Amino acid sequence: MKKGTVFVLSGPAGSGKSTVREALMKRGLNFHYSISDTTRKPRGGEVDGVDYGFVTRQRFEEGIARGDYYEHAIYTGEYYGTPVSQLTPYIESGVNVILEIEVNGAMQVKKKDKNAVLVMLLPPSYSSLEARLRGRGTETEEKILKRLQRAKEEVLLFNKYDYFLLNEDNGVDACVRQLEIIAEAQSFRTKNYPDFTTKFFNT
Amino acid sequence: MKKGTVFVLSGPAGSGKSTVREALMKRGLNFHYSISDTTRKPRGGEVDGVDYGFVTRQRFEEGIARGDYYEHAIYTGEYYGTPVSQLTPYIESGVNVILEIEVNGAMQVKKKDKNAVLVMLLPPSYSSLEARLRGRGTETEEKILKRLQRAKEEVLLFNKYDYFLLNEDNGVDACVRQLEIIAEAQSFRTKNYPDFTTKFFNT
Repeated sequence: MKKGTVFVLSGPAGSGKSTVREALMKRGLNFHYSISDTTRKPRGGEVDGVDYGFVTRQRFEEGIARGDYYEHAIYTGEYYGTPVSQLTPYIESGVNVILEIEVNGAMQVKKKDKNAVLVMLLPPSYSSLEARLRGRGTETEEKILKRLQRAKEEVLLFNKYDYFLLNEDNGVDACVRQLEIIAEAQSFRTKNYPDFTTKFFNT
Repeated sequence: MKKGTVFVLSGPAGSGKSTVREALMKRGLNFHYSISDTTRKPRGGEVDGVDYGFVTRQRFEEGIARGDYYEHAIYTGEYYGTPVSQLTPYIESGVNVILEIEVNGAMQVKKKDKNAVLVMLLPPSYSSLEARLRGRGTETEEKILKRLQRAKEEVLLFNKYDYFLLNEDNGVDACVRQLEIIAEAQSFRTKNYPDFTTKFFNT
């Protein structure tokens, strides 16, 4: 049986990756959305076990020591990680798993699983990203500059990703469709069928 | 501007690759079909400049010496090759080029162009390939065995190809659709946009 594929969706703050991922999940395809653990506090409306698994720093570090995390990274001083339990059982039973994680975690995934598919979601340009972040009007100048600096570092990893999607204004539907195309193309990739020739000659 | 992508379609005799390629070309997409040169004689109905460029051995070898061939290989004692003129001008102007060539030529293409996409078209199984070849009823047992031996060698290069398509009975339409999906997915591959980050930060 074909295993599931790990899809990593990354993108700077303001790229709209949660919106795209939520829209993808609504399509009811063969995707499991991996819920990350984090040590940061829940923000307004976030629900434990839905948006994140909210855990203490101590519990997270014990989890790392036990090998409970497929990947983990520190982002603005807090731990974020993918529990093995959110990934392995699904992949093994043929379900694709989508991880919405930042670039350092993505690099760890690619190292562990050469068949993982890394997708970077981006606004049309850096200036449009800046406009979006400033347009929110909810953050201090210092925070905005930090996010922009971080975004720059992330985009510079562009060529470590397999695919990229441009999230134009109101481009969520287009991005979801493009993700589906990328996912469908994976089902014809030879490297996802290591036993193919054996089967081919024996049936 | 994005360059075109080179798509190589290979597959053993009896896999139906000409039928699939012809059906793809009829869809009127952004594909140029590269007409190969060969030193073999035209078969019934084949037209020079449409099916192949039929050239003499001397002319072919002069072409090799001049660097006129993007790739070439010898198959059952005859030369087959892709003229540079069938490929480079199209790629440079953003048109995808589809080459219907055998495995040795395909390996040369992959070496020259890491962005080339290699697709292997296959019947559902080796036994079904054998049935198809025998079902034609037009060839000697010796020829059939030679083709089967050759098919075996080709299929063993499965994992050198990027994608594969199974041509089930009457599966031509499915294969064309799958080729289109593979082609569309290429338009989101980061490696096809080497100047992306420069542009991203300057617009």
